[in-house]
Amino acid sequence: MCDNYQVPGTPCMDSLHEECGVIGVYDFAGNNVASDIYYGLFALQHRGQESCGIAVSDTKGPKRKVDSYKDMGLVNEVFNPENLGKLQGDIGVGHVRYSTAGASVRENAQPLVLNYVKGTLGLAHNGNLINAAELRQELERTGAIFQTTIDSEVIAYHIARERLSSKTVEEAVVRAVRKIKGAYSLVVMSPRKLIGARDPFGFKPLVIGKRENTYILVSESCALETIGAEYIRDVHPGEVVTISPEGGIQSDTTLCMSKEKTARCIFEYIYFARLDSHIDGVSVYNSRIKAGKFLALDSPADADLVVGVPESGNAAALGYAMESGIPYGVAFMKNGYVGRTFIKPKQSSRADGVRVKLNAIKEAVNGKRIIIIDDSIVRGTTSGRIVTMLKEAGAAQVHMRISSPPFLWPCYFGTDIPKREHLIAYNHSMEEIREKLGADSLAYLKVERLEELVDGLSICKGCFTGKYPMEPPKEDIRGECFDQ
Amino acid sequence: MCDNYQVPGTPCMDSLHEECGVIGVYDFAGNNVASDIYYGLFALQHRGQESCGIAVSDTKGPKRKVDSYKDMGLVNEVFNPENLGKLQGDIGVGHVRYSTAGASVRENAQPLVLNYVKGTLGLAHNGNLINAAELRQELERTGAIFQTTIDSEVIAYHIARERLSSKTVEEAVVRAVRKIKGAYSLVVMSPRKLIGARDPFGFKPLVIGKRENTYILVSESCALETIGAEYIRDVHPGEVVTISPEGGIQSDTTLCMSKEKTARCIFEYIYFARLDSHIDGVSVYNSRIKAGKFLALDSPADADLVVGVPESGNAAALGYAMESGIPYGVAFMKNGYVGRTFIKPKQSSRADGVRVKLNAIKEAVNGKRIIIIDDSIVRGTTSGRIVTMLKEAGAAQVHMRISSPPFLWPCYFGTDIPKREHLIAYNHSMEEIREKLGADSLAYLKVERLEELVDGLSICKGCFTGKYPMEPPKEDIRGECFDQ
Amino acid sequence: MCDNYQVPGTPCMDSLHEECGVIGVYDFAGNNVASDIYYGLFALQHRGQESCGIAVSDTKGPKRKVDSYKDMGLVNEVFNPENLGKLQGDIGVGHVRYSTAGASVRENAQPLVLNYVKGTLGLAHNGNLINAAELRQELERTGAIFQTTIDSEVIAYHIARERLSSKTVEEAVVRAVRKIKGAYSLVVMSPRKLIGARDPFGFKPLVIGKRENTYILVSESCALETIGAEYIRDVHPGEVVTISPEGGIQSDTTLCMSKEKTARCIFEYIYFARLDSHIDGVSVYNSRIKAGKFLALDSPADADLVVGVPESGNAAALGYAMESGIPYGVAFMKNGYVGRTFIKPKQSSRADGVRVKLNAIKEAVNGKRIIIIDDSIVRGTTSGRIVTMLKEAGAAQVHMRISSPPFLWPCYFGTDIPKREHLIAYNHSMEEIREKLGADSLAYLKVERLEELVDGLSICKGCFTGKYPMEPPKEDIRGECFDQ
Amino acid sequence: MCDNYQVPGTPCMDSLHEECGVIGVYDFAGNNVASDIYYGLFALQHRGQESCGIAVSDTKGPKRKVDSYKDMGLVNEVFNPENLGKLQGDIGVGHVRYSTAGASVRENAQPLVLNYVKGTLGLAHNGNLINAAELRQELERTGAIFQTTIDSEVIAYHIARERLSSKTVEEAVVRAVRKIKGAYSLVVMSPRKLIGARDPFGFKPLVIGKRENTYILVSESCALETIGAEYIRDVHPGEVVTISPEGGIQSDTTLCMSKEKTARCIFEYIYFARLDSHIDGVSVYNSRIKAGKFLALDSPADADLVVGVPESGNAAALGYAMESGIPYGVAFMKNGYVGRTFIKPKQSSRADGVRVKLNAIKEAVNGKRIIIIDDSIVRGTTSGRIVTMLKEAGAAQVHMRISSPPFLWPCYFGTDIPKREHLIAYNHSMEEIREKLGADSLAYLKVERLEELVDGLSICKGCFTGKYPMEPPKEDIRGECFDQ
Repeated sequence: MCDNYQVPGTPCMDSLHEECGVIGVYDFAGNNVASDIYYGLFALQHRGQESCGIAVSDTKGPKRKVDSYKDMGLVNEVFNPENLGKLQGDIGVGHVRYSTAGASVRENAQPLVLNYVKGTLGLAHNGNLINAAELRQELERTGAIFQTTIDSEVIAYHIARERLSSKTVEEAVVRAVRKIKGAYSLVVMSPRKLIGARDPFGFKPLVIGKRENTYILVSESCALETIGAEYIRDVHPGEVVTISPEGGIQSDTTLCMSKEKTARCIFEYIYFARLDSHIDGVSVYNSRIKAGKFLALDSPADADLVVGVPESGNAAALGYAMESGIPYGVAFMKNGYVGRTFIKPKQSSRADGVRVKLNAIKEAVNGKRIIIIDDSIVRGTTSGRIVTMLKEAGAAQVHMRISSPPFLWPCYFGTDIPKREHLIAYNHSMEEIREKLGADSLAYLKVERLEELVDGLSICKGCFTGKYPMEPPKEDIRGECFDQ
Repeated sequence: MCDNYQVPGTPCMDSLHEECGVIGVYDFAGNNVASDIYYGLFALQHRGQESCGIAVSDTKGPKRKVDSYKDMGLVNEVFNPENLGKLQGDIGVGHVRYSTAGASVRENAQPLVLNYVKGTLGLAHNGNLINAAELRQELERTGAIFQTTIDSEVIAYHIARERLSSKTVEEAVVRAVRKIKGAYSLVVMSPRKLIGARDPFGFKPLVIGKRENTYILVSESCALETIGAEYIRDVHPGEVVTISPEGGIQSDTTLCMSKEKTARCIFEYIYFARLDSHIDGVSVYNSRIKAGKFLALDSPADADLVVGVPESGNAAALGYAMESGIPYGVAFMKNGYVGRTFIKPKQSSRADGVRVKLNAIKEAVNGKRIIIIDDSIVRGTTSGRIVTMLKEAGAAQVHMRISSPPFLWPCYFGTDIPKREHLIAYNHSMEEIREKLGADSLAYLKVERLEELVDGLSICKGCFTGKYPMEPPKEDIRGECFDQ
Repeated sequence: MCDNYQVPGTPCMDSLHEECGVIGVYDFAGNNVASDIYYGLFALQHRGQESCGIAVSDTKGPKRKVDSYKDMGLVNEVFNPENLGKLQGDIGVGHVRYSTAGASVRENAQPLVLNYVKGTLGLAHNGNLINAAELRQELERTGAIFQTTIDSEVIAYHIARERLSSKTVEEAVVRAVRKIKGAYSLVVMSPRKLIGARDPFGFKPLVIGKRENTYILVSESCALETIGAEYIRDVHPGEVVTISPEGGIQSDTTLCMSKEKTARCIFEYIYFARLDSHIDGVSVYNSRIKAGKFLALDSPADADLVVGVPESGNAAALGYAMESGIPYGVAFMKNGYVGRTFIKPKQSSRADGVRVKLNAIKEAVNGKRIIIIDDSIVRGTTSGRIVTMLKEAGAAQVHMRISSPPFLWPCYFGTDIPKREHLIAYNHSMEEIREKLGADSLAYLKVERLEELVDGLSICKGCFTGKYPMEPPKEDIRGECFDQ
Repeated sequence: MCDNYQVPGTPCMDSLHEECGVIGVYDFAGNNVASDIYYGLFALQHRGQESCGIAVSDTKGPKRKVDSYKDMGLVNEVFNPENLGKLQGDIGVGHVRYSTAGASVRENAQPLVLNYVKGTLGLAHNGNLINAAELRQELERTGAIFQTTIDSEVIAYHIARERLSSKTVEEAVVRAVRKIKGAYSLVVMSPRKLIGARDPFGFKPLVIGKRENTYILVSESCALETIGAEYIRDVHPGEVVTISPEGGIQSDTTLCMSKEKTARCIFEYIYFARLDSHIDGVSVYNSRIKAGKFLALDSPADADLVVGVPESGNAAALGYAMESGIPYGVAFMKNGYVGRTFIKPKQSSRADGVRVKLNAIKEAVNGKRIIIIDDSIVRGTTSGRIVTMLKEAGAAQVHMRISSPPFLWPCYFGTDIPKREHLIAYNHSMEEIREKLGADSLAYLKVERLEELVDGLSICKGCFTGKYPMEPPKEDIRGECFDQ
């Protein structure tokens, strides 16, 4: 979906800004958890390549002590045996972050670590609050100071204030999240407890895992397999779970709504999450296969080969091939080494940014009528380049199929869709888009198919329909964002 | 093929040691070439992730001036706008390197830059000389000193010595390469000329490209497309080409042998080279598709799904699916972020090194009879883990197919195959291997099929047959290697 | 005074922990101030070698925008042309920090930058609050969260809260500092104003300078000369000055007390401040010369040579020589290259940590009766090594003179004197100390001389007398310190 | 002497280019020597701040194995516990380097490590060969290749060639150094022996030390004290010493000349060497004290205070004070934190490069007639700034005294004196210089005094007199230097 074509380690300026991954680990047997968090963050790296961090604490040690380390960069750039070895504790939280450039500074890396009335808190947050600016102003009007521009700080403030009149930290968390609106999957570490919270709509995923005496809260189930843990269940939309040796897993469901009101971000299934993860019982792999199948059913094309834009289009392409009977193939070689610090070609250079990352395989393409599947189109620039490369490689026809409906509306809950005027689907007809891309045909997944992708789960499809599960803010919240 | 499962940026200790990529660029119009070399090295990164370097010179400037920079790390780790900007010149060479750990030191990074009787030379070399130790000793016996343990230094010495009695630098190169035995694709930059040489057997690839006034010599054709250049032709086995504004591309073929005597490394097609490259007119993609087709023909299996071990097994899996009519699918999610500095899990950790990098997708696998294609088996450790993961994910059967014949003999020409006693195929029967891996069936590509993969080109298959295109050294040369 | 012998860049574990340097610059003409802050911080580097930082803002730009950069390390390690070049603004603050190891983390680096109800604040603080823990608890009891363990955060909170009911930011600063007790020299940057505050006792220095349209607030006058500015005057103890284009320098003196109640830290004159600075009209150079003269008058010795422990003892040695008529000389070569990252010799090593940094010059010392001047003795370890080195170099006698009285009491205001039980003077008689050091005689500056050093200025001498200008906390505040 | 005013870590572009420090350590008891070399290099850091390196080898291990690490930067920047810990061996050599910018590249860092006919060699060299270019050309004409532009490589080649017809490595060294002309103090490590060589004139220092079973060869005696070793003796001019467990210290004196022909670089005493070192039995401290005394005798001035330009002028100032009876004082505060990576003020900046590093102390200077001593004047720029600062600080008169004669001729032996046309003394009369500097009087040390400084040792004073101990090259060798 990203016009700059997203490659490992390259925060795409035209893509998803508050996408993040969170993890919390608590080993009741008292062993160090930093290593588990490290490998867990690896498994979540696709959710954020800008910065990462780990904070750990010793539940048997002094109440005011947290060791943390965070910095800009990938997990394997930020952590080394030395700094990882200094993180000693049996409870901890971790975070990987992706954001827009404006706030891409070390100060905004997570987890947020702080002292408050009852000791320390560590917070890692995935999602986007729609009333964050409002809440900030409210807090500021009572004298609060903010040292970052991330929502976690707003949430932390509310927990700290609610803690004053709450019996337990989990009660404070429940009362705090009652005040925040929007998307959040939250992992909180207090001196003795690990707490997870998921917003009532369930926009963002959060699952519970276990390995012997160790409990894990993490954005995606794939991370559980990486660290050898067993999947227990998803945190329910609206649920706050508290993990402690005394209580095991305790659940507060006062914020939970009826199933029909929940609204998972459908883009987790279409693009964000890893193929080997499950969210709320639905396999991401299956969703993408289905998306491809629906495209084959609804928008067939007479062709010789089905290919995906690697990697995100491959699973849907497989589904399309299954349904249509047209052979699946590979059309592009992707260069996986183009990382975060890659020097982009200047205008003057004859090297082409897209071609450095992606190159068509002539033998696979030449003379063929190709169906190519991508997960989305935003501005259309990369898609156009891809069609051109296929044609230059000798493709007789190029039929583009998109495994999501057209983007027409902003997202207020964490997906960084550009302003409407930049969305190609907003100000062009389908036929105009096709012509701009140079494709022989073009089709998107039908909006009606979305629920089917996820076995009837209740989802948010606001970016396609403009109908949001909750009242969106009046103005585009992205403009108000402090740009510290 | 690598038991530690090779991922981007991870030099696999059990894999190919003197695999490297080379590039030379000469812009007759006098523009800087460092940027082209940089993007070219990106396209060659899969050939070596240990160290890289660029050396440039100004053909209009003083004869004794070369700017170079090299270091351990990936291209995008080593180079930044500052150090790249300092490399000013219209002629240059570049190198990416992969080697065994012993000699993995900054001193061994290439290109080699040196002063000799006629000014400066820059050398980048891919391959392995079988008489390097001998030549070193010979040179030492005349008072030579060596500051590295790389073959390039031996070659450089011979060029320097031959230059004394040669009219031109290219003549010196021709006379020098006459003395060296083994595999080499060589790019040499003199103060005014760019020279490429490929050994008479053509073990390693080397192609010529052009973009307006700029000439390129590079290991693989994919790099030409990255930098927007046109493929001209392959350097012929045994050919020395000299590029200069006066002479254009000049060719010396005195070392060339008859076509039948040439002996390309078949592993370039099977594993090393990028899918979108051509070597000597044969598409790497086509070779791998064919390998899969032959496996389907020769070693069919009754199954529901064909999958590849990502990424290197995917193309052969596609070929197998085409031929067999069994659907192609995906069984594994690969974590592309596990880079060079990844901290390997300790024994004590519950995280599993293979699973961090590769995870089975249950939905794709469960209940299915799976044919899985890998490019090779060395020790068998990783292959065994892969079978286990598939079974744990619910695969009803696992049929392993290998797109190359069994490794039985050492390679003396650049492929780092471990000692015979570590090769699972050397000391186990096919049935024993199958059992060790836990697969339901196992088959390798037949040796007889190899020539067919490459349209009848003459190849080296010594590692499978023990029959080498030239007399191998008496002892395993790897033991003699200085370990400075 | 430091038993680990303090050298450039080496935070001495046995020395002064909240010693810091602060600077604020405001260019009314709108030019960038980052470069001035950078050179100013160089001139303050002796006040803190652990971390440093710069924050700048554009008074004509958006109200919520601050660029900042801070990290562990020396000024010339942390800043480079690239990150300095990104700091664009006409108003800014800077900080160098020295602290005990426990809190020596990046999170605690200054300046503190934050958002509050009226936009942004940047704070840089030198000193130590004695009611910080109390104030933190109070704030926490109203729901505050803390992300650092530095006093600046407590001060910032108070400013933010007071701002709610204050007409101007400077009024808020005045009201905030009314609540804090202890030592502080504070520089605050608001979106449009630069504010400086000095505690009513004037423990820590702060001066005002000017260069054309640029106003500077900085810890020491020497920094003004470095950046080519003119000294205007010292901020008065208890004064809050506000600098803005509309008001020039405005002063609030509501917290000022009578001159006799002020209590400058005498150690600024004896050790902390740079020789070429003036504090409250008194030259640091003159103070140290006087200290030496008083030692000569009060504790004469029959000797051939007066030397200082470099560098901090040299000026007093010069004063001693002047008064006594005994020639001044040099006895030690100091290795100025032993920096922050110096690897300390292990016990097993024959290298001696003190001797690596300091070596006696035999020719200067041999056969001579030496008077050696140091600024202080804490544990006595280094002083003992120094006497030993002189004797080994052939000194006939070693008479040690200390240019301050014996440390007997803790400091609550920023000087990191170890617990009393570690102070050699606390649990040993003068004669015992002399014997432990191996000196032939030993004398300290008399407490009665201290006021004379500074021309009768009112000073704090609590560490010598146990009589503090304000009621100290009941317990040693150092134990309560959060150790995050 | 340096117009950019030399501070720690700042390679001064206008100063001494091939000044270096060398060390070799051999522990017969088999213990690791890397740590001793590390501390030894600290003690030599003043001899070169550009790059440094250590190479070690295990005399009991394989003959072809050397561990080495070298890089640009100070000793404490380049080495850390990790890379130092990897240097395992009982014999080793180390080097600190200072050079002109042109060749300031990592490739030129020393020690040079190489393989040759008899295993490995490690070389560290201090000095400048006057026939290096000639020897390079000669070697190149026989087919040699050069990978650096340092003289060590030329020396190494000769050792390697001579080794072919020599019985021992030390014989090869003796025969090799016979061919090289110029200044060299050389430390060579072979697989089993440590060898030191000093050129027949003894331009550069080299001493022998011992600590139990450990033998040390090092540029300056101060390093012996740092590592707790005992001074044995200086290597004699022209001597080659060989250290081995079998032979202890063996000496070859075939190149030694009569004492009168030797020609130590007088600048070692005046400026290069550390105050606490001895060279050929003469104390550096004593030499500088004498220089000051001679200035007082020969060029008295009626004044109130004698001061040195810190640090290099201080000892001579002390000598002047002793002789004249005028009190010694301090006039400048020097900022020791201005390191290698210091960002120099731009022209546009109001910060002044000299003043950042050096600031006058008004109280010490005001109203006084000052005699200021510097070690030399090259271009005169810094000296002029110093006089100006003193006058601005209120000095009534400034009498400049220089502890060396005027520079009038080039140095061919390692001291980087700029071309004659840039030498202020070359094209100005004494009175013109005085006027340019703005001093009230000016005097240099008389050439006739030089021998007296060093107790009658035979010295080289070519830079003052144009009379060199050996025939200088016809052209300025600096122009011919390859600038790779």
